[in-house]
Amino acid sequence: MTTLLALYRRPEGGPDALAEFERRYAAEHLPLVAATPGLRETTVQRVSQALGGETDIVLITSMTFDDRAALDEGLASDAMRQAGRNLREIAPGLATLLVLEPADDLTTRDGPD
Amino acid sequence: MTTLLALYRRPEGGPDALAEFERRYAAEHLPLVAATPGLRETTVQRVSQALGGETDIVLITSMTFDDRAALDEGLASDAMRQAGRNLREIAPGLATLLVLEPADDLTTRDGPD
Repeated sequence: MTTLLALYRRPEGGPDALAEFERRYAAEHLPLVAATPGLRETTVQRVSQALGGETDIVLITSMTFDDRAALDEGLASDAMRQAGRNLREIAPGLATLLVLEPADDLTTRDGPD
Repeated sequence: MTTLLALYRRPEGGPDALAEFERRYAAEHLPLVAATPGLRETTVQRVSQALGGETDIVLITSMTFDDRAALDEGLASDAMRQAGRNLREIAPGLATLLVLEPADDLTTRDGPD
């Protein structure tokens, strides 16, 4: 499983700007994402708190694909290209897109070696 | 479902420092996390790429709980307190801990309003 994780920073302009970003994200962006071939699951979550610190991240979306090849096919699709263009319009400079791969070797180690 | 998302930045000291952090994270930290009451699932992933930019985040761990109350109980547990102390030792200043709540209202909106 390969994950595309999108981290969205808080837009300037206060609560109204954040509400407008969320409105367009739901109305314009997510429908484009949903049309991406090979996309297995999309999870959208709000950041409700940063423990022991502060953060400028307000929204995190996780998109999972079978593997890196499937993600690359998805990224090259018309739907994702449109989603990318839309993102540059509704959240210019506010998104960080990370590709994540399972770190199974870390979870299956058996204590101190 | 409430998620505790831990973002780990790259330690200074090059590949050896990263390998040592990963070794202690697997051997010391994850076993403490695993003992947390109320923890439903733990997923550890490496950042393999930042699309269209750079990132200093190398590892992301997602820990899910039934709800915020369950997370708070987990955070107050001996296991999580020990995990927190361990983290300050093996990754001082390198972790950002975010509490995430589902943004179901964004995924169920029906296009432009």
